[in-house]
Amino acid sequence: MSIHEEVTQKAKRAKEAAYRLATLPSDVKDRALEAVARSLSERAGEILAANATDMEAGRAAGLSPALLDRLLLNEKRLEEMAASLRALISLPDPVGEVIAMWTRPNGLQIGRQRVPLGVVGMIYEARPNVTVDAAGLCVKTGNAVLLRGGSEAINSNVALARVAAEAAEGAGLPPGSIQLIETTDREAVNAMLRLREYLDVLIPRGGAGLIRAVVEQASVPVVETGVGNCHVYVDEFADLDMAVRIVVNAKTQRPGVCNAMETLLVHEKVAGVYLPMVATELTAKGVELRGCPRTREILSGIGAATEEDWATEYLDLILAVRVVDSFPAALEHIRQYSTGHSEAIVTENYSRARKFLATVDAAAVYVNASTRFTDGFQYGLGAEIGISTQKLHARGPMGLEALTTTKFIVYGHGQIRE
Amino acid sequence: MSIHEEVTQKAKRAKEAAYRLATLPSDVKDRALEAVARSLSERAGEILAANATDMEAGRAAGLSPALLDRLLLNEKRLEEMAASLRALISLPDPVGEVIAMWTRPNGLQIGRQRVPLGVVGMIYEARPNVTVDAAGLCVKTGNAVLLRGGSEAINSNVALARVAAEAAEGAGLPPGSIQLIETTDREAVNAMLRLREYLDVLIPRGGAGLIRAVVEQASVPVVETGVGNCHVYVDEFADLDMAVRIVVNAKTQRPGVCNAMETLLVHEKVAGVYLPMVATELTAKGVELRGCPRTREILSGIGAATEEDWATEYLDLILAVRVVDSFPAALEHIRQYSTGHSEAIVTENYSRARKFLATVDAAAVYVNASTRFTDGFQYGLGAEIGISTQKLHARGPMGLEALTTTKFIVYGHGQIRE
Repeated sequence: MSIHEEVTQKAKRAKEAAYRLATLPSDVKDRALEAVARSLSERAGEILAANATDMEAGRAAGLSPALLDRLLLNEKRLEEMAASLRALISLPDPVGEVIAMWTRPNGLQIGRQRVPLGVVGMIYEARPNVTVDAAGLCVKTGNAVLLRGGSEAINSNVALARVAAEAAEGAGLPPGSIQLIETTDREAVNAMLRLREYLDVLIPRGGAGLIRAVVEQASVPVVETGVGNCHVYVDEFADLDMAVRIVVNAKTQRPGVCNAMETLLVHEKVAGVYLPMVATELTAKGVELRGCPRTREILSGIGAATEEDWATEYLDLILAVRVVDSFPAALEHIRQYSTGHSEAIVTENYSRARKFLATVDAAAVYVNASTRFTDGFQYGLGAEIGISTQKLHARGPMGLEALTTTKFIVYGHGQIRE
Repeated sequence: MSIHEEVTQKAKRAKEAAYRLATLPSDVKDRALEAVARSLSERAGEILAANATDMEAGRAAGLSPALLDRLLLNEKRLEEMAASLRALISLPDPVGEVIAMWTRPNGLQIGRQRVPLGVVGMIYEARPNVTVDAAGLCVKTGNAVLLRGGSEAINSNVALARVAAEAAEGAGLPPGSIQLIETTDREAVNAMLRLREYLDVLIPRGGAGLIRAVVEQASVPVVETGVGNCHVYVDEFADLDMAVRIVVNAKTQRPGVCNAMETLLVHEKVAGVYLPMVATELTAKGVELRGCPRTREILSGIGAATEEDWATEYLDLILAVRVVDSFPAALEHIRQYSTGHSEAIVTENYSRARKFLATVDAAAVYVNASTRFTDGFQYGLGAEIGISTQKLHARGPMGLEALTTTKFIVYGHGQIRE
């Protein structure tokens, strides 16, 4: 069987499963989540053995310590995965909710009801926990899932997907609800990208290269979880102590993630006072600063920021810094370089706060808070599938609702159109 | 300048306009709509002259009477376009609406606010009224629009877009808010499909071929307005008189549109009584019936339906008819052949009505009403951009909200993430 045939067969099986999953009551789905959670500890031995094979291959291939750490599974990480699944059980099931219903003058009663998307294709890299996370989110929302993980984690993913699928099916989910593409051949991804007949959505999770490839080549609709070149603008009317706390948090609390800040913009009227304050704290945390010429007049000894720096998502302890002439200049810089993820202003000025919120075109816009809050759990959504930087369907942190669509349900008593 | 450069330049200009349109108050947008409506009558002469050129070329090219009629503009049709624009003025502006706002335990106040999509690319065929309709819907929702119409209507479209853009800009809209691609070269469409940097969404409106080409080739996100292979299932517990009225309406009230019915499914227990009843009425309206073998035993003299008929959207006075063994067999037929547009059951049985609504996977599912109601105006949305048959972003009739997205706005007082 060719790779294309294999992927198509699994996708077709997923479509079958999705049809039955769509009308499954919440209690059956929740029992399946509990069964998967339990299996993760009951079958920890076989999962960790598979992971050991991946770790060995990773070390032999010279993976960096950071990548090896992402790949590693242990009892504690399996427990965390199980805890995430149990957290899903306690969330309300979005499927079946009628979000609006109204009656037309002719008596037709029209409602919009939330229903599953159908089959979700998940294409992701390194971390094997995504296998279980994605499966859990899809089970909860009544979607079938077709998983395609990174080649470094292939043995771990095969073991996790097998354990999850067997537990879920044992608890009453239809066969095909959870499937993994077991070949690491790149051809399998190409096949997934074009299977419009069976896949309802693709969600790529990983580096910018993976996401770009999926977005550029897929004919299946994609929800893009994108790059975050996030800015904090410290206004002339900022509380400067607050601005130090926010900038240090946004840059250093976890620099390797998409909602971390990458460029600091400072109004010229406060730059002379503020930049030395914040630079001391940032430098103490090991942050390398790269400044515009005016920044370097104030902070002597730091490197120069180039055009490329303004456009870079470092995901590292590096910060580009620019002094701006005015509030409009800050808006203009953000407009030019923002990737539409998370943008913040620090100000005590009412009109500027409002103008920033209204004008900046991003998934999340903040006044006086750290960009690090852009997260499904921090927002209180109870779960997170990813953070969308596209505008269609879902934008910003995606909770369970992002894995649903709606249909119109119409109750009549014989109405015909005149 | 190459075609690609020309399209890119217009798209870039649209992006500029979109940035300013996003924060324009409703009254400015409504004044622009009124100005466009007024210009359509004030400048009727130049529009009708351009249309006469298209009509002449169309006749010379041997266009069918139906296509020529779609192309034709006259005073009355211009008045209808103006009336549609004025109807938009009276609708509430969705932009700016905060659809939810909540406060987190740390005091962060998080809201979801409706904002425009940005730049809408509209690719459409024959009818020049789409030029004005699409421009009006985009103005109302604060989006810039880049229009690409069919080559038969090129002179009409150029005139309409010029009149609309000049009137709108005269009333305070930024330049670039309404633009048309003036070349009929197919290369211009190819360019639009890939301009992710400037276009936020593409909406193709037209035949199945156009829509398929856009969906398959675009890297810009697409809202698909698709094919409707719609079914009506007459259950054994149907009120048969009601079932006749609904089927005749769904098939004949306007056969050339996507929500018209294409296949009739009848439960075997009522087929012997029902089929002759409905066949008499349908035949009187000029409908050609094509039946399965069991249908043809009851209705002698009608043609045979082939596998192809079950999958065909006739858009014409032809109806495929099948007798099914059971309710599940009807669900199975619909599952196999439905394009996910509009599906109806006629029944007085409570459980079957509920099961049909829950199980059938379509944008609109009906009990005891004609599929012809799937329409933004009939649903009370006040406007219609199209009818989406995809699941992401918008499904079913799309009103103004379908041309918006949301962003998270977050009010803090110095919160940082622990």
